[in-house]
Amino acid sequence: MSTTSSPGEARNTVASARVVDSTTRKRAGEVLDAEEIAGVVADFVHDRIPDYQMAAWLATIACTGLSTGELVALTRAYAMDGGHLDLSRVDGAVVDKHSTGGVGDTTTLIVVPVVAACGAPVAKMTGRALGFTGGTLDKLESIKGLRTSLPVEEIVPVLKSVGMVITGQSTDLTPGDGATYALRDVTGTVESIPLIAASIISKKFAVQADGLVLDVKTGSGALIRERHRAVELIQTMLDLARVFGLSARAVLSDMSQPLGPSVGNALEIRQALAVLRGERTPGLWDLCVTVCRQMLQSVDPLLTDEQAMAKIDRVLDDGSAYEMFVRWAVAQGAAAAALEAERFPTASNRYVVKAAESGWVTGIDPRVVGKAGLLVGAGRLTYDAPLDYGAGILLRHRVGDHVDKGDVLAELFYDRGDADTARSLVESAFRLGDRAVTAPSAVQQVFDPRGA
Amino acid sequence: MSTTSSPGEARNTVASARVVDSTTRKRAGEVLDAEEIAGVVADFVHDRIPDYQMAAWLATIACTGLSTGELVALTRAYAMDGGHLDLSRVDGAVVDKHSTGGVGDTTTLIVVPVVAACGAPVAKMTGRALGFTGGTLDKLESIKGLRTSLPVEEIVPVLKSVGMVITGQSTDLTPGDGATYALRDVTGTVESIPLIAASIISKKFAVQADGLVLDVKTGSGALIRERHRAVELIQTMLDLARVFGLSARAVLSDMSQPLGPSVGNALEIRQALAVLRGERTPGLWDLCVTVCRQMLQSVDPLLTDEQAMAKIDRVLDDGSAYEMFVRWAVAQGAAAAALEAERFPTASNRYVVKAAESGWVTGIDPRVVGKAGLLVGAGRLTYDAPLDYGAGILLRHRVGDHVDKGDVLAELFYDRGDADTARSLVESAFRLGDRAVTAPSAVQQVFDPRGA
Repeated sequence: MSTTSSPGEARNTVASARVVDSTTRKRAGEVLDAEEIAGVVADFVHDRIPDYQMAAWLATIACTGLSTGELVALTRAYAMDGGHLDLSRVDGAVVDKHSTGGVGDTTTLIVVPVVAACGAPVAKMTGRALGFTGGTLDKLESIKGLRTSLPVEEIVPVLKSVGMVITGQSTDLTPGDGATYALRDVTGTVESIPLIAASIISKKFAVQADGLVLDVKTGSGALIRERHRAVELIQTMLDLARVFGLSARAVLSDMSQPLGPSVGNALEIRQALAVLRGERTPGLWDLCVTVCRQMLQSVDPLLTDEQAMAKIDRVLDDGSAYEMFVRWAVAQGAAAAALEAERFPTASNRYVVKAAESGWVTGIDPRVVGKAGLLVGAGRLTYDAPLDYGAGILLRHRVGDHVDKGDVLAELFYDRGDADTARSLVESAFRLGDRAVTAPSAVQQVFDPRGA
Repeated sequence: MSTTSSPGEARNTVASARVVDSTTRKRAGEVLDAEEIAGVVADFVHDRIPDYQMAAWLATIACTGLSTGELVALTRAYAMDGGHLDLSRVDGAVVDKHSTGGVGDTTTLIVVPVVAACGAPVAKMTGRALGFTGGTLDKLESIKGLRTSLPVEEIVPVLKSVGMVITGQSTDLTPGDGATYALRDVTGTVESIPLIAASIISKKFAVQADGLVLDVKTGSGALIRERHRAVELIQTMLDLARVFGLSARAVLSDMSQPLGPSVGNALEIRQALAVLRGERTPGLWDLCVTVCRQMLQSVDPLLTDEQAMAKIDRVLDDGSAYEMFVRWAVAQGAAAAALEAERFPTASNRYVVKAAESGWVTGIDPRVVGKAGLLVGAGRLTYDAPLDYGAGILLRHRVGDHVDKGDVLAELFYDRGDADTARSLVESAFRLGDRAVTAPSAVQQVFDPRGA
């Protein structure tokens, strides 16, 4: 309600009336038109409606879903007034990738330098932690000095000079998505297929790379747990990418256990560096290989699997993938020395979780591990909560391993928060059984022009 | 996420995690347990979770509905830690009533003094404007000096000495409902049957009157438009009232046109005073008679319709209903002179809406009239928006009237806001036709122990 006759207040009245009306009609089953969707998003971007009104609008969409027309309109609204990266100045076809995120999922920090070292420039704009899963941007911020939010005009120069760039999603490029992303995270409206699809594709539309690989997780540690819904998300995004003129392929990957052994910001950076130095970490590396291959083939469709594999092995073995990461980190402001293990934030306290009996590890619930991380500051539960970069969990075993009573299953690193509950969660995440099991493959399905 | 180890912050972490988790699980189709519902409501009451998280939780419930168990739990949570009025010190059986609200609905301000003047004490706790409908509390605040928020300990003494009391819903009595009511209003989560039922019955449970009459509106100006959903709301509330040991009956009333001619805070008070002085305003008075009769019969079931009518007519004709209102207003701090017409706030500007052609008034959309009122400050669109008590609309004709071209259909009174749009809305609310129609009856159905 306008309290004065100033134009700002008057706009506010109209904007609040629109979003409240839109929420009500959407819940009643009406289809929102493109102009209305664009209006609500723009009003939120320009601070004409309060958080709580946008939260109710998004929660209502999360419940009721979106028609194809609404979805295209929302995606467009997210990218509205944002412009694009100008990749025409970059030599070679540029690749982009996206992961829906998971627990212990450090894929981006590995595949981007590997693919870049193979000669395909990679432009990756990335986000913060969502729900109980980590965010690449948060992980990167544990590297001292690294600038994770480049202004738009610096992105292409870094990409051109280094061969890769990773930066926070510029709200200049997708102002609508930027404004809603954080709000969804803290209101339980993350796990919605149309909201996820619009968010991701709007960002990819703003980058307009020549090739795009979408890595969608399935399993209890994924935002979308059920396999059929993860496939639905993939199909929704591939369709939406087509509408927006993007050449995309996708990988369905397993998140029924944490992807890698490290969960937590600095811990995951160190994990990625270990892989780039040549460690073929089970699970994590298996997925990275497939994503790298898809990324290389997305801009060079004639490249065979064997040829792609040979390139990938070479850049790991000759150190050029690791060097690519270092050159990139330095180009974005870090000192090379900042990547030495002892320079990362570490938590001062440690709890050790041991096996209460001998047997096989039959399950490690990644969602429970992720929630344990949240409780000690590895993720955020409200908007403005600062992270504890050193906090996290190191898993010493994977599904399928045999352990003896008293073996260390995991370590919890913490400085604050509810560490006792976090420890119990880590403990309860492990299931032991008396029969051997095999872990599900890290790569479940590939959606490429041949396999889709 | 906790940022320090202080207990408050730690609680905050747990609270935010719970409401986000609860929103996610509720959307996924899970049934929330009573402890969880009580926890979320208590966290919101005690400021442990931000508005936007509660907004998403409520929006999700509005979309997905509540099971009977969840509904009882939410109602209990709304009243939790609130206590009850102690009506045992009041002579006679106390009556309570509730209206779901509408446009031009001044019923409460009429029926409470009428029934009280008939000898049945009436305790009425009331709310503010919700959505495009007015709120009794807002209306009362246009009376200079009137205290509309009595502390709990003053409520029974006023009731005992005057015979009636009308006061703002004490958040002492229903802290959970108090905290969520305003948020629902500004997030488009008002029009939800379970949320409405829990809100109303929690308040009635806190009053614990001997008799209770629920007035539920149907039609485009009602929060619940469709008749079958209004009946569902009535049944839900009557069932819930039974669970909480309340003896309730209900009236289904018409809101397909504004109930009375006055829409706006001070305008509606003046309208109520006119009826109490003996004006039998069509529509408004028809409903008031039925509600008064039901209220009298709710605590005196042997009273016949004719006996009730005779009582009602007597207190209007001998001025005792009007005197009751004056005595009550004075007991709550107003000067008797404050009730004279010229002492009410009035807007300085007036637009007149005239008939563009001759014909019969076939419809007056109350929702559109209500929205026009919102635009000039007669209601509120955000939390903290102050009202313009003098602003509003005076309808000069009802459905069924014949008008000649150029006749005044309505007047719009305003001081600020988007008056031009408001005028267009009032104009568009009127439908004229070339055939006579009869207006629907103000009382559509009665749900009493005989008629239900």
